[in-house]
Amino acid sequence: MSTILLSLALVLVGAKLAGELLKRLGQPAVLGELLVGIVLGNLALLGGPDLHDLAQDETFSVLAELGAILLLFHVGLESTPREMMAVGGRATLVACVGVVTPMALGFGVGELLRPAESWMFHAFLGSMLAATSVGITARVLKDQDVLRAPFARIILGAAVIDDVIGLLVLAVISGMIRAAATGAALGLAPIAVIVVKAFAFLVGALIFGSLLSPRLFRSSLALRSHGVVLALSLGFCFALSYLALAAGLAPIVGAFAAGLVLEEVHFEGHVRRGERPLHESLEPLIALLVPVFFVRMGMLVDVRSFAGGGVLAFAALLTLAAALGKLACGLPSPRGVSGLTVGLGMLPRGEVGLIFAGIGARLVLDGKPVVDAGAYAAAVFMVVATTMATPPLLLWSIRRGAKASPPRSLPVP
Amino acid sequence: MSTILLSLALVLVGAKLAGELLKRLGQPAVLGELLVGIVLGNLALLGGPDLHDLAQDETFSVLAELGAILLLFHVGLESTPREMMAVGGRATLVACVGVVTPMALGFGVGELLRPAESWMFHAFLGSMLAATSVGITARVLKDQDVLRAPFARIILGAAVIDDVIGLLVLAVISGMIRAAATGAALGLAPIAVIVVKAFAFLVGALIFGSLLSPRLFRSSLALRSHGVVLALSLGFCFALSYLALAAGLAPIVGAFAAGLVLEEVHFEGHVRRGERPLHESLEPLIALLVPVFFVRMGMLVDVRSFAGGGVLAFAALLTLAAALGKLACGLPSPRGVSGLTVGLGMLPRGEVGLIFAGIGARLVLDGKPVVDAGAYAAAVFMVVATTMATPPLLLWSIRRGAKASPPRSLPVP
Repeated sequence: MSTILLSLALVLVGAKLAGELLKRLGQPAVLGELLVGIVLGNLALLGGPDLHDLAQDETFSVLAELGAILLLFHVGLESTPREMMAVGGRATLVACVGVVTPMALGFGVGELLRPAESWMFHAFLGSMLAATSVGITARVLKDQDVLRAPFARIILGAAVIDDVIGLLVLAVISGMIRAAATGAALGLAPIAVIVVKAFAFLVGALIFGSLLSPRLFRSSLALRSHGVVLALSLGFCFALSYLALAAGLAPIVGAFAAGLVLEEVHFEGHVRRGERPLHESLEPLIALLVPVFFVRMGMLVDVRSFAGGGVLAFAALLTLAAALGKLACGLPSPRGVSGLTVGLGMLPRGEVGLIFAGIGARLVLDGKPVVDAGAYAAAVFMVVATTMATPPLLLWSIRRGAKASPPRSLPVP
Repeated sequence: MSTILLSLALVLVGAKLAGELLKRLGQPAVLGELLVGIVLGNLALLGGPDLHDLAQDETFSVLAELGAILLLFHVGLESTPREMMAVGGRATLVACVGVVTPMALGFGVGELLRPAESWMFHAFLGSMLAATSVGITARVLKDQDVLRAPFARIILGAAVIDDVIGLLVLAVISGMIRAAATGAALGLAPIAVIVVKAFAFLVGALIFGSLLSPRLFRSSLALRSHGVVLALSLGFCFALSYLALAAGLAPIVGAFAAGLVLEEVHFEGHVRRGERPLHESLEPLIALLVPVFFVRMGMLVDVRSFAGGGVLAFAALLTLAAALGKLACGLPSPRGVSGLTVGLGMLPRGEVGLIFAGIGARLVLDGKPVVDAGAYAAAVFMVVATTMATPPLLLWSIRRGAKASPPRSLPVP
């Protein structure tokens, strides 16, 4: 308890001060939170206390994850399933290019630098580059108040879809490596189960959710207590996040789906009775928990891991593969939407990349970990570089687009 | 993560539905949350899943504790140190009667039912009855919107003071028992250290806090980011809660002190710039976390513990001692303030009583635990009975008072 109270106080005040500083420098506030995290996580190098354990603390990471869940829920609220469907085909295309290109390039980096190792090592290296970390991009889009612009919808839709594809790829490749380690090949049946579970969740959440939630929330008008809107929506968001996790997906996928399905209009009756609109009630929750997520992400970076020989070259090539691979996915963006903005929005690889690297470090093939210390450090570098570069680059690209043409945001429903 | 998401969803929706039901029956909503907790915690008896581990889960209990901290912070915000000083003498008197009487009666119950045991057993039994659980009362007063009435100030001040005295008594008696177990007597020096630390925190927080916080928050006007008020106030609240814990007190004492010291008027400049007033931003945080606290409190009740022979008689006598002891502390309330309301407000013994019982169960004297299974079950019964009885009785007494005379609430500053 004592640790959590102190770290919450530090995170809240530190994040606010750093965010203010970065904003004055014309940079996004989230960059300040990441920097605070990197400083806190590496204080031991400067002779300060070692806070590395804190980043691994279970309660702290649950608070961080709740922050990510609430952020994606909030981001999802800005769109409806119908609006997402409208960009759905294009977003799926962007997501597929954004998964295949970096995977192929990452595979190539593996062939080039570690030619002696099995193709499965290279495939795992590639799969670490697949999933966009939607949190960073969502935060920049939200801070710039452009969540309703067509390019923002394409980025967010594609980022969520490639999160899903990325998790599927991870599950399949890990399964193949585990099977290979026991000398067997992975059957088609377990692969099919993974894919079917994920799709069942997505289709179920979006279709049943859209059909049921308006009725559910309209009938909740019968409840006269104060705060019904917030309690029921958060309950819905947490329930879908739980179901996503149970289906083998990330909880943020469930939270985003919950946000898509819910609409403020379902609560019109409640708001007329004096309840606060949902997005207003969410703001303080986001203000408390989202900085925990970004500061913790910075804390996970161990700057010492870049000291090893050859690691920097490996890291630089992997980062290049990650960046080129995602910039390529701006190519299929429609007329009037900047491909560069879409590509930059897809750039950050965050938590998911680190989670993949962590899983790879525990997988063993031919008596060696699939992701050794050098590859892990390179993966961390790739995550940090893409994460830190995205906010300023994306901001620059959005402003450039806004100057070139007036914003084409969809009408507020 | 998966457990926390599911339990948050259940707690939010269950608490809201039960609160609604109880409110329609004219009972306070918090009683519904406690009942939901008792049902969830004892589902295994009805053939459901055993959720007992959840109540002990560290992350879940940190979320619950954060709920209690935010509730007391919010309650503290409704008063200023000056207003508290105005009722301070009377509140201290009420608190002292409210500590001494139940301790003496509890000691008597021990002498009567367990005459063979050492006086330290009886003193420990008495000390379990000392500390009022301010959460329940604060919640009822807040829901009835009477936090600014003189009787509410006296109850809250006295409840916080008796929390402090109770924690000091616990520290001293546990120290004596531990010293006795090793054959020594507890010296005066360790007792003095405990008392001095606690007083240093309280005086430091209230005096330095009142002097520094207006300057601090006025100078924070230089920060232009959105959400400065909430981030800095929460940081201040968590920092004082941390310091209270470090001084050997409960974190809620620090949160209450932080609330007393902070005043909305410090943020006038921010609010003029379009920031939300602090109490409004706190509402959603309270809506998410406070039900976790009350539902968890209910989950800690194991209904099977009342099955043992003689336990019910012990429990009934202990509860009677607890109730009469606290009702007595309404006697010194000033003219125009209902002594019965004050006594009823001081009635609930919550978490702190259970924590005392838990510590006693681990303390060993003469080869036996200081609090054996029977005494523990009796303590749990006492906590449940006083906690469940307070909301309806206090509500009845407040309404009776409101009918008898118009509310004498202090002018809004």
